[in-house]
Amino acid sequence: MSSDSSVNREIHLASRPEGWPTADNFRLVTTEVPTPGPGQLVVRNQFMSVDPYMRGRMNDVKSYMPPFALDAPLDGGAIGEVVAGEAEGVKPGDIVLHSLGWREYALVDARAVRKVDPGIAPVSAYLSALGMTGLTAYAGLLDVAAMKPGETVFVSGAAGAVGSMVGQIAKLRGAGRVIGSAGSPAKVERLLALGFDAAFDYHEGPVYQQLKAAAPDGVDVYFDNVGSDHLEAAIGAMNLHGRVAICGMIAQYNSAEPPAAPRNLALVIGKRLTLRGFLVGDHGHLRDQFVQEMAGWLREGRLSYDETVVDGIEAAPEAFLGLMRGENLGKMLVRL
Amino acid sequence: MSSDSSVNREIHLASRPEGWPTADNFRLVTTEVPTPGPGQLVVRNQFMSVDPYMRGRMNDVKSYMPPFALDAPLDGGAIGEVVAGEAEGVKPGDIVLHSLGWREYALVDARAVRKVDPGIAPVSAYLSALGMTGLTAYAGLLDVAAMKPGETVFVSGAAGAVGSMVGQIAKLRGAGRVIGSAGSPAKVERLLALGFDAAFDYHEGPVYQQLKAAAPDGVDVYFDNVGSDHLEAAIGAMNLHGRVAICGMIAQYNSAEPPAAPRNLALVIGKRLTLRGFLVGDHGHLRDQFVQEMAGWLREGRLSYDETVVDGIEAAPEAFLGLMRGENLGKMLVRL
Repeated sequence: MSSDSSVNREIHLASRPEGWPTADNFRLVTTEVPTPGPGQLVVRNQFMSVDPYMRGRMNDVKSYMPPFALDAPLDGGAIGEVVAGEAEGVKPGDIVLHSLGWREYALVDARAVRKVDPGIAPVSAYLSALGMTGLTAYAGLLDVAAMKPGETVFVSGAAGAVGSMVGQIAKLRGAGRVIGSAGSPAKVERLLALGFDAAFDYHEGPVYQQLKAAAPDGVDVYFDNVGSDHLEAAIGAMNLHGRVAICGMIAQYNSAEPPAAPRNLALVIGKRLTLRGFLVGDHGHLRDQFVQEMAGWLREGRLSYDETVVDGIEAAPEAFLGLMRGENLGKMLVRL
Repeated sequence: MSSDSSVNREIHLASRPEGWPTADNFRLVTTEVPTPGPGQLVVRNQFMSVDPYMRGRMNDVKSYMPPFALDAPLDGGAIGEVVAGEAEGVKPGDIVLHSLGWREYALVDARAVRKVDPGIAPVSAYLSALGMTGLTAYAGLLDVAAMKPGETVFVSGAAGAVGSMVGQIAKLRGAGRVIGSAGSPAKVERLLALGFDAAFDYHEGPVYQQLKAAAPDGVDVYFDNVGSDHLEAAIGAMNLHGRVAICGMIAQYNSAEPPAAPRNLALVIGKRLTLRGFLVGDHGHLRDQFVQEMAGWLREGRLSYDETVVDGIEAAPEAFLGLMRGENLGKMLVRL
């Protein structure tokens, strides 16, 4: 954390990665703490989120979000305390969620923040279980894939922020069997501790074989965070009328070449499968129900969320690179 | 047609094709006209259908339908006149639809036939526009892909039996723009005559480039009969919240190797696309509405259906091979 309260530090995109990003793609820049104009707030960020989708925004490609600009601060989910400005019912001392992370102090439009109650859960939870991450899991599983009680659910990247929520929500909502894949024996162990019925390390053998062994009666819902061989394996293991909620394809974000695609896609016809890509932003109508249900599970101790926290704005690039390498358990956060 | 009314001829599967099927995979076998037992009927088939899905059943692979048995007659949609037996309200002289094609005389369970009214349309239409073919187009477009008026629709294999119905139904139901791809200049010309707004020959250049030129504002609904490069091109051209009804992937039915899959599948996330495989058998609840609407359009002369008819049971294998090569315009039928 900056010790001089007039100094603001932020991370800029110094260059666009080709394939895997490196520390050289980022630059730490020192500026001044901004002054709020009318309708604006200055927020001292306490936590910022690093997320897989940010990798796509580092490319100079038009997508559902504009690419990050070069030589300008990155952005993304963050939470902090208002330290200057007052508007729209928000005043200094309030804790607010907003989208200008990657910096110690953010100058935000008061209409673009959401005030949260720090009494319900630690503020970091609003970037993980109670935030976009949790809502992504909740909406993808229950709305996009329409999971029904008794069904078998498979989630890839299951030890990650979204995946670990997916598996737990599935169990809490009555899934018959929940299977997760992850990238290390420690993560597999953690999934079993979280209540997954089965889990496997995808390094230990072909995904399809491990999935079939874990799901002898097939899979009804697949929550895809990985793409590639995981998606192909899931299609192969799906039961009739199965649904795939496609949340991410991290296996290919850093590939310089077109990725492997599921060679068995024709199976979607005979099995009558539905594959649906989604973004959490389309599912805001679920937010109230989501917060109520998740907060209840948290209070009752039935839902756990893991966080991997690194400290200091200067460590944010490394946090993101670690996320890309799968070094996080649960949500990867930077404490500022 | 057999001239001796006690003789029945049928086509057996002599061997399983590897890759492209050939005439050697089939055998013409002469048997006797069967005698009906209780609850059974004998139908003299007038028309039989050959369909792309039959290729899959020639492989020894468990799928949504059992594989064809070797050294036994193939089967599939057929229509004909009851010549013996009486049960379930069906009697000699009635015209019935059933699933025992590939033979001149069929011994069928009376509960497994559907009596049709030959006064509404020529009997062959019950195997094309008014039959499973038409219902496949209708259900895929309106139920699976949920096409809305004003949308842009792309259909591949558009000069085929299903594709030509898809394009016409789309226009009749208010699509803003309908684009078809086909495999020859003559087919392209036919599509334009059927009312497609644009059509292209996929041999004449990359599908994606031709599709983008034909759909400058993007595609909302893609009805996939082809898979492979067509599916990849469609995903690339789709608008936000687009839907793909996956009916068939004829591009890969005869491939001995795993097919090319869409390398741009990750686009389904940002575009929030839905890809859904379907079989017409799941959409029987639409049949009454379908027959009523389609018969109305036929009566009013607003819907055309093409048929490519070959004569004689002995020509059935060649009809199927021609279908695989795309030699048909509209529905490929064998007149018996």
